[in-house]
Amino acid sequence: MRIAVLGTGVAGQLLAGKFAELGHDVMMGTRDVTATLARAEAAAWAVVHPGVRVGPLADTAAHGELVVNATSGGASVDALTMAGADRLAGKVLIDVANPLDFSGQTAGLPTTLLVEDTDSLAEQIQRAFPEARVVKTLNTVNASVMVDPQHLAGGDHTMFVAGNEPEAKSAAIELLRELGWRDVIDLGDLSNARGQELLVALWLRLYGALGTPDFNIKVVR
Amino acid sequence: MRIAVLGTGVAGQLLAGKFAELGHDVMMGTRDVTATLARAEAAAWAVVHPGVRVGPLADTAAHGELVVNATSGGASVDALTMAGADRLAGKVLIDVANPLDFSGQTAGLPTTLLVEDTDSLAEQIQRAFPEARVVKTLNTVNASVMVDPQHLAGGDHTMFVAGNEPEAKSAAIELLRELGWRDVIDLGDLSNARGQELLVALWLRLYGALGTPDFNIKVVR
Repeated sequence: MRIAVLGTGVAGQLLAGKFAELGHDVMMGTRDVTATLARAEAAAWAVVHPGVRVGPLADTAAHGELVVNATSGGASVDALTMAGADRLAGKVLIDVANPLDFSGQTAGLPTTLLVEDTDSLAEQIQRAFPEARVVKTLNTVNASVMVDPQHLAGGDHTMFVAGNEPEAKSAAIELLRELGWRDVIDLGDLSNARGQELLVALWLRLYGALGTPDFNIKVVR
Repeated sequence: MRIAVLGTGVAGQLLAGKFAELGHDVMMGTRDVTATLARAEAAAWAVVHPGVRVGPLADTAAHGELVVNATSGGASVDALTMAGADRLAGKVLIDVANPLDFSGQTAGLPTTLLVEDTDSLAEQIQRAFPEARVVKTLNTVNASVMVDPQHLAGGDHTMFVAGNEPEAKSAAIELLRELGWRDVIDLGDLSNARGQELLVALWLRLYGALGTPDFNIKVVR
């Protein structure tokens, strides 16, 4: 499948690399290709992933049959606007971003969230791009767990999906299975992304308590 | 130990009954004893739990060496005020309540939370009763799981505690162990209760997706 990964941070890099490894035709999008490739770690990443083209957001979105939003949550709507509503229309848009507010960050304190349980970033994106088929998933784990759930307890833990369209969720779940996710819970429509995004408030504190981001939750039932 | 359970809802009843079964000297407090015992299910509960006295909030708080807040989250500070700051001073106060806003509830929609990730009910209680030794725990599961974690996957799932005072947390953890909790994660000071309380946003949606409140999360690491 032709997959567009928007965002060149750690999540974008790991997802793009993994999708390419799985045989997909992957392009990774950034606001400013020159500036991104001037970053030493991004340039090094590009060298070892020659199969993944790095391009502008619009070209990348045009490339993808399926689009992944791996941009920073606070900048996601802007980045998707640059990608272009017409290039997202009709496509499954997997939103893995978290609405984190880094503005008040001080040493030892978790960042806060930009949403309450009356809205979510995923719903904001869906409202801004009504023709995109938004599915929220993967935001509840570190990027290293997103792309390789099996390395943690043999994959015996849970991923959530939420979205308004069953077919779009099926496509997202199929991709999750390719990544190695076995236990996927469909929470329902996209308003349930509020639960997924608010879990990040606990995630940040568990990161602090456990001293590692390499964990996940399993829903025991 | 002399334990005061404030609140006569399902959580209060199950906790008081279980603590009594474990050999503690338990009293259960309510705003209006006559009105509570006029409720058929509460009266029936009292009949089969003769070892648990039901009394006014103030008398109950005076009885307890350790106090459990199992009142409705939106009414907790009021109920604790009726219990009396002087009767809570110096005592471990285990807060199991959730700051749920039932005002906007409509069929099929979860209730919303009264807090964001910049505050929590537990911190509000600690600010209102600075001499109480508040520990947040048990709010992340249904009452049936609180008092009997072993019936679910043999107890292989996780409980969280947060509080400002290590000794108070140790007392709470000891009580959790008596209930059967094996995996208890200390998140740190009481501000971490924000993570525990915001998890309820996901819990409510999982309840909807799974069709049962009889589940919990395990932190896989």
